[in-house]
Amino acid sequence: MSFDAVDVIRTKRDKGELSDAQIDWVIDAYTRGAVAEEQMSSLAMAILLNGMNRREIARWTAAMIASGERMDFGKLSRPTADKHSTGGVGDKITLPLAPLVAACGVAVPQLSGRGLGHTGGTLDKLESIPGWRAALTNDEMMRQLEDVGAVICAAGDGLAPADKKLYALRDVTGTVEAIPLIASSIMSKKIAEGTGALVLDVKVGTGAFMKELADARELAETMVALGTDAGVKTVALLTDMSTPLGLTAGHALEVRESLEVLAGGGPADVVELTVALASEMLAAAGVTDVDPASKLRDGSAMDVWRQMIAAQEGDPDAPLPVAPEQHVVTADASGVLTRLDALAVGIAAWRLGAGRARKEDPVSAVAGVELHAKPGEEVTAGQPLLTLHTEDATRFDRALDALADAVEVGTSAPDRRLIIDRVTA
Amino acid sequence: MSFDAVDVIRTKRDKGELSDAQIDWVIDAYTRGAVAEEQMSSLAMAILLNGMNRREIARWTAAMIASGERMDFGKLSRPTADKHSTGGVGDKITLPLAPLVAACGVAVPQLSGRGLGHTGGTLDKLESIPGWRAALTNDEMMRQLEDVGAVICAAGDGLAPADKKLYALRDVTGTVEAIPLIASSIMSKKIAEGTGALVLDVKVGTGAFMKELADARELAETMVALGTDAGVKTVALLTDMSTPLGLTAGHALEVRESLEVLAGGGPADVVELTVALASEMLAAAGVTDVDPASKLRDGSAMDVWRQMIAAQEGDPDAPLPVAPEQHVVTADASGVLTRLDALAVGIAAWRLGAGRARKEDPVSAVAGVELHAKPGEEVTAGQPLLTLHTEDATRFDRALDALADAVEVGTSAPDRRLIIDRVTA
Repeated sequence: MSFDAVDVIRTKRDKGELSDAQIDWVIDAYTRGAVAEEQMSSLAMAILLNGMNRREIARWTAAMIASGERMDFGKLSRPTADKHSTGGVGDKITLPLAPLVAACGVAVPQLSGRGLGHTGGTLDKLESIPGWRAALTNDEMMRQLEDVGAVICAAGDGLAPADKKLYALRDVTGTVEAIPLIASSIMSKKIAEGTGALVLDVKVGTGAFMKELADARELAETMVALGTDAGVKTVALLTDMSTPLGLTAGHALEVRESLEVLAGGGPADVVELTVALASEMLAAAGVTDVDPASKLRDGSAMDVWRQMIAAQEGDPDAPLPVAPEQHVVTADASGVLTRLDALAVGIAAWRLGAGRARKEDPVSAVAGVELHAKPGEEVTAGQPLLTLHTEDATRFDRALDALADAVEVGTSAPDRRLIIDRVTA
Repeated sequence: MSFDAVDVIRTKRDKGELSDAQIDWVIDAYTRGAVAEEQMSSLAMAILLNGMNRREIARWTAAMIASGERMDFGKLSRPTADKHSTGGVGDKITLPLAPLVAACGVAVPQLSGRGLGHTGGTLDKLESIPGWRAALTNDEMMRQLEDVGAVICAAGDGLAPADKKLYALRDVTGTVEAIPLIASSIMSKKIAEGTGALVLDVKVGTGAFMKELADARELAETMVALGTDAGVKTVALLTDMSTPLGLTAGHALEVRESLEVLAGGGPADVVELTVALASEMLAAAGVTDVDPASKLRDGSAMDVWRQMIAAQEGDPDAPLPVAPEQHVVTADASGVLTRLDALAVGIAAWRLGAGRARKEDPVSAVAGVELHAKPGEEVTAGQPLLTLHTEDATRFDRALDALADAVEVGTSAPDRRLIIDRVTA
């Protein structure tokens, strides 16, 4: 069936419901170029402001999946589970998580992206490992999943091409922040990827995309419903992103911290979230007799990590690069660290060179921010609080500007609830 | 000052007010191509859904005027007044009105457009006169205004180019129906044109752009405020468009009817509105001692018409073209004609060949609909109600479809109030 783009736009503009046929047509026509960018952007703004209901979102997602190929892991000898985080500062969880879950007997096909804005991309982090490459063919990916059990690689162009085009458009037209569009963007790729189970880490707080718990919950519920309806066992955790995860934000810095976790150490919050997400992934994949924490302690997760890195031509024994320029920020009062703002740290890391403003920009592997204390801990005036890392000392000033109001020292801090809630179908 | 387009879009998306500097920047950058079409369309949708206040609309209009040249009629020997109609079916009023007002001593610089959709364009109507041409240079226009007193011609590319670009974009992105954008589009051209006084004919009813009186009033008040603030004496009439104006809709048909009015005859509603708008234009231009109705009766308006047509190479004595194919629709009951729907007649005329779907489409000079009765009049079963005119008899079926529910015959019709209200600063 064929429609007129203006009629479809008007339907949503006037608070109507888009029919299944309208949605199928507009996504297909947009992918083919028959609906123009300026038409899709006004439709996206109408969706952002007037919303879509569950049926519309499900159909929108299905239409984006139908715009490209679907993968099938049915021939693998073990079940699959994937994880998606909505993005946060210092969120390196995928790095220890994928080998950990594989060590527990569930294959992890993790198709990842690069960072845009103040949150780092998983591929950017791994590329700080000498030799490691993100691009795999589908065959290479399938073989690595069978042999190693975990793969973290770049998503190919074949999955949900409509989403790729729409995401780039939303980025420049002020239409990123629409829950129906965020949910369908994430879920179309994950469903097309073919994972059997999916655990969503929906972040909430200053350093997250969703600043408010209610918005994060709505996004989580929408995505869980989409996954469930598509036959993917889907669970979401709502987790805190008011302060960075762990003690590092920056690519090589985060790989180093991930190695500490895989070696049985590492910051408590990173370990807690890694184990919690691993448990969810195992349960969703039907594996209930393995304790993931034990696989960190006994070194088997680290073994999978080394195989996973080597399989993609990375050298797991090569030293990670280190920033030539470092600047220490000290506490200016004694007391309890009550706040260390995630967004400020993320922007500082970005300005130090870890982030990119446009897709084409290169990133610095060594740039970032190292934390020496976390909210709730005692600090003494003059002690190091943060170390800024960069290749270019002229970047310190703008990074320090971003951190101007990021730190608060007081008398007591409320306990941080890292895992705020769990959302199921 | 420079802004980021996404920040400007977000401001309006999140129901904020755009600053003067943001508006100036976004209009200028859009005109230059530095703000992309897909960015302007999502901003337009945000404006449509979240509105603009009076200050924002005024600044938006000023920025569109500043995107091009301004004309100046200060050197003319007489005052100027212009009229703008928001468009309706059978609205040929400009044709008798411009020469009538000129015959009363006020110069009328009428920069007009072509029709799009179900309402006819003034230039399309005049082009049914053999030889007449719409394109004049600014010098030719100025000379004709001085010599003849009236000119109806195509607006040049130099006036408010931002509006030209934005109008074309809104047409394909479902963002036409935004009162702030409609008001600023109309008024930027009229203010840039440099008229001293302006009378707005804001139509309301099925055949008009504004179906509801409240919307029409809001548009009228917005435009009157814009004109007044810009130093143009501006008045608006709210007029009925539930049924066509006069007895014809179609280019040559409407010229013929206009000639009847200029000859002192013609349908009562066309005469009433022509005289009312002429009186407003004269008053706004400061001329209060001339009765325009007398200038229709004494032939002086017709004299100006003939000069005006001849000055643009039209032959006022050449016979108007006539449709080779005609089809008569008769009344199927006797009684009082209670409804003859303007939109249905407009769509029928369009389908008969009088309208265009895209800017580039040609129109038929002879196509259209002739009415043999108006609401409120007695009709007898079997008498002719409408005559459809076309060059192509295969078009009758779709035109008749449009008219299927257009006619109602009953026992009594409420009086039609042609001029519903008057809006002043």
